[in-house]
Formats: sequence, structure tokens, C-alpha cells
Amino acid sequence: MKKILNTAEGYVEDMLAGIYAAHGDMVAPVGDQLRCYQTAQKTPGKVAIVTGGGSGHLPLFLGYVGQGMLDGCAVGGVFQSPSAEEIYELTKAVDNGAGVLYLFGNYSGDIMNFEMAGELADMDGIQTVCLVGNDDVASAPKGKESIRRGVAGIFFLYKCAGAKAAELASLDEVKALTEKVGSRVRTMGFAMSPCIIPEVGHPNFTVEADKISIGMGIHGEPGIREEPMLTAAEIAKEAMDAILADMPFAPGEEAAVLINGLGSTPLDELYILYNEVAKILAANKIPVFKVWVGEYATSMEMAGASISVLKLDEEIKALLAKPAHTPFYSNPQL
Amino acid sequence: MKKILNTAEGYVEDMLAGIYAAHGDMVAPVGDQLRCYQTAQKTPGKVAIVTGGGSGHLPLFLGYVGQGMLDGCAVGGVFQSPSAEEIYELTKAVDNGAGVLYLFGNYSGDIMNFEMAGELADMDGIQTVCLVGNDDVASAPKGKESIRRGVAGIFFLYKCAGAKAAELASLDEVKALTEKVGSRVRTMGFAMSPCIIPEVGHPNFTVEADKISIGMGIHGEPGIREEPMLTAAEIAKEAMDAILADMPFAPGEEAAVLINGLGSTPLDELYILYNEVAKILAANKIPVFKVWVGEYATSMEMAGASISVLKLDEEIKALLAKPAHTPFYSNPQL
Repeated sequence: MKKILNTAEGYVEDMLAGIYAAHGDMVAPVGDQLRCYQTAQKTPGKVAIVTGGGSGHLPLFLGYVGQGMLDGCAVGGVFQSPSAEEIYELTKAVDNGAGVLYLFGNYSGDIMNFEMAGELADMDGIQTVCLVGNDDVASAPKGKESIRRGVAGIFFLYKCAGAKAAELASLDEVKALTEKVGSRVRTMGFAMSPCIIPEVGHPNFTVEADKISIGMGIHGEPGIREEPMLTAAEIAKEAMDAILADMPFAPGEEAAVLINGLGSTPLDELYILYNEVAKILAANKIPVFKVWVGEYATSMEMAGASISVLKLDEEIKALLAKPAHTPFYSNPQL
Repeated sequence: MKKILNTAEGYVEDMLAGIYAAHGDMVAPVGDQLRCYQTAQKTPGKVAIVTGGGSGHLPLFLGYVGQGMLDGCAVGGVFQSPSAEEIYELTKAVDNGAGVLYLFGNYSGDIMNFEMAGELADMDGIQTVCLVGNDDVASAPKGKESIRRGVAGIFFLYKCAGAKAAELASLDEVKALTEKVGSRVRTMGFAMSPCIIPEVGHPNFTVEADKISIGMGIHGEPGIREEPMLTAAEIAKEAMDAILADMPFAPGEEAAVLINGLGSTPLDELYILYNEVAKILAANKIPVFKVWVGEYATSMEMAGASISVLKLDEEIKALLAKPAHTPFYSNPQL
């Protein structure tokens, strides 16, 4: 294992200390609890949005805390859920008196701890509601959306929920909008190499040499199948066939696209992949409103990528276009 | 070799086609020459800034073409210089009547082709001037700055030169400012793994297992030495000792810092590294104005990072703070 670190045990705390040192004007811990990560800017009366999840996925999850997006993130160990206590402490810190939306990936440990934190917050008179991202079409078939994993597509939920909350919409309104966006996002990923959890020191899953794992999750959850390495065109076809079968587009409906790198896949390859995705969208007469290409939800140094498609309406387009600014993501106001 | 591509020969063209497909509102090719990459927004009377270099380093070089930064980029093959003809065609396309600054890394192939393009442009009455980034302290000792390689620190030259040109400064003024910034940037890098040029298909340099190469260049140029893997604190000390010995700070002088990932090094590790750099700067009583952490100049999937330090003055601070917006980089106007 050749990683830039001091000790495997200090990986998460040293990373957080570095982020606070670099971006102390924008984010801060709650007191001395480094894993309770909050925006430095509070807006009275605004619904607060809190996320959380395991480390090892930067810029997911904490990278979306900032202006026009999220208010806080409870940070777990590498690939581990944050504790209910941490989520609860964060909830009290970021609450602006308008309720708190918990928005995170569909993993059982996260659900359990966010629900427990919500019960604690309720006793303090803070209203909370839980919503999960479950965009991974490879993780369960149509009809079983409720057990699908959350992966990179949650970026679209963060962006739209954050923009809606910034308009001082109510908790019910932010929840309804976020549910709508969530129902319109589909993602499919694939991986070519594993990653190493620092405290483990060796890969805890593998992808065979010269093979690609179709549908592998961002913690190495098994995919649909492994097959000999595919071309960019074949990968795009496989993913887009699955996405468009699961979520058909009516004539005239527009898409936003996110091409997400899992860690060690160069930007060049992500754009080669998008070029193939664009051809498929054009062949299906689906207009593209906006495209994001880069690393939005990684698995440390895993090689691979995911394709997310969001089906738009006028409200979602307007929210996507709103400015946002965090230490890890900027959507400029032009 | 497991890369997301169709053919190794089509790697650069397919990547460029994907970028134009994704960001056609912001960038465009010159006619049908995909490798002549220009901003979609022209500003009459503004000094144009053109860069160029080999592919395989995204977001370097083309990623900095856009509002508030560069006007064009001549795109070479992977780790290859663009041709003089391509640079010349691009020069004619982006010239706004105020002259063109050529700003690129200090590599002999690039210098030869940019100088040749400048001679061709001169015959058309377009004034050009060449400046190179040569920030890599590991590549030549003090006193031999003119033969140092250009690496990630050129980001600071792009940002400041672009902001100066956006103020409609003259070519002489943009040149003088850029030279000043260049004289105040130092970078030191290190690598833990090689990368694979698609058309070669296997690594054309190596880093021994369990070793780190101190000072390795972004094309795998040999470093100062290889040694057993170091901790983040040891890496930071080695790099900062070299940088601060080469460029001492007077009391009160401020720094900007760029922690750049070479490709497969996770953001977590870059922040762990910054945390150690911040401690060293604090111990040296050097105030930090702003920090950039992420992938700014990569070597495809190489593992490793570089540390760049820019010594500030009031003019440079003001230019760093100006807004910029490209498909790969946003500096928000807040």
C-alpha cells in the first residue's frame, strides 16, 4: 500500500484537519468534533440539509457542503456510517429553525443512524425528514427501486435540494422537490480495479485482470457480471440501454448527464465515454441541457466510472442553473 | 492496459470530441481542426493568451481556456508537443488585435514549435511573445532556473495572466506581470506509480514497489532519488525544505498553495498532505492567503502529487481573486 498518510488510524482525522486548514473561511467543525462538518454560513429560516456517509468517496459527501447546497455532513470512517450521535450533534448545530432534511445514500447503516438521530432531534423540537438517493439501476431491478444503492446521482439531489432550500422553501416543499428529482435520476457504473482501505492495507475485493465489472458499487459491491474489457462505445451502450429502459423519455424531454470518475480514471477517458453517451442520446432524440464530467463520487483509487442521467422539467432546470459554491464544487453565477 | 477508449490511435480526437460535445457553449475547435481549441467568447482589444502541450495532463493544458483565463490551446498527442502549424492556426483565430502571449511549459519541443508559430504570425502582423513555466525545483539547481521543467505551478501563471489580460492590459503589461508571477512560483513533486501511454500500452517508466520517487516529472522524468515510501509529514518536509530554500520568504510575505494530484491519488491524501504543509508554513510564520487542492496537472493515472507555493504581493492577490470560468475550473465571483 503506497498512500500519502501518516497512520492508517489517523486517515480520516488528518484529512479533515487538512480540509479545515485549507477552507476555514467556508466550513468548520462543530466544536472540536472534526467529523461534524458544517458550513460557516448560516441563513436564519432556511431549511438545513444534512448528509453523511463513509469516507473514501471525496468529494462525496462533505464536498457538497457550502453555499447553495448542503449545510452539514456527518463523516464516517472509510466506507463506514457516521454515528447517530454525530448526526444529532450536527443537526443541532445547523438547524435554522425551519427543519432539517437528511439526504444520504440508501445504505442500511446510514438509514439506521440517521433515523436514530432524527428521534433525538425530535425530542429537542427539531423537525427532521429522511430521504435517500437510490439511483443505481445495476443494484436491483425495476420495481425494486427502494432497495437500490445510492451512488453518484445523489449529486443532482444535492444541487436541486440546496437551490430550493436557498429560496427559503418549506421543509415539505424541499422534500417534495427532492423526491421528484430522485425519481428522475438513474446511474450505472463499472469498475476495472479495486481500492485499498487504509486500515485494511490490501484490496478487499478484486476485478480480474483484463476484465471490467459491470454494475459494481462504490464499495466494491458485486456488479451484474464481469466480462473482458469493453470499448468506450460498448460501455456507453450497456449503461445507456439499462438507464433508458428503466426510465424512458417522452419526445421533447431533456436530460442532464453526469459522467463520474471513480478515482484513478483520467478525465480524458471520461470525455471519451461522454462522447459515446452523447451519440446515444442524439440517436434517441434526447436533448442535453447540461453535462458534468469529473470526479463527483469516488472510491479512493478505484478505476472506473459511472453514467448518471437526470430527466428534467422546467423547475429542475432552473434549480440546476442556480449558483453554488463549496470548497469542492462551484456552479458559477454568470 | 484497461482504459476507457475505443482505439489507442483515436484517444486524443475522441477525448476532444467529447469535450466539444459537453461544453460547446464555452469552447470550440478552429474550423474542423479539433486540436486547435479556443474559447467561444472573444473580447475585442484583449491580449489573447495561447497555451499548448501534450495530452495526458488534464485539466492541463486546455482546461484553463475560458473566461478570465486563456483564449486557446494547441493540443498535442499524449506527451507530445503540438505542431507549429496548429499553434499558428489557433493564433490567427484567437487574436483580438492586441497581440498574443504564448504561455507554456519549459520543454524543448514546445519551445521550438511555439517560436516557429510566432514567426509565421509575425508575417501576418500579429505580435507574439513566448513565456515558459519553469517551476519544478527538482529538475535543476538554483542558478539554473532557465532549464527547470514546467509543472503544476503554471496554473498560477494562467490565473494571473488571464485576469490581467481581462483588464485589457497591454501585451507588455501582461508579459511583465506573468514574468513576475513565474519568478515567484516553486513546485516539487513525487510519484509512486507510473502511467501508460495508450499507444504504447505499457508503462514506459517505473517506480519500484514500496518506493517513492522524489522529484519525478510529469512525463516520468527521473527524480532526485527513490527511497522507501515516506509518511505525509516526511513528504511535506522534503518538498517544503526544497521550496523555501530556493525561495525564502521575508517576514510578512504571504503564500498561495496548490496541492496537485497526479491522477490516481485520492483527494483525501491530498488534504492529509496539505495538513502537513500548513503546519510547516505556520512554523515558518508564512501566512496563507488561499489554497487550491485537487487535480490541476496530471499524468493520466500516475499516483503522486506536487506542492506549489506562490509568493504573493498585492497585485497578485487581487488577480488570484478575480473570477474565472472554464469547463474545468471555476473561481467564483462572490
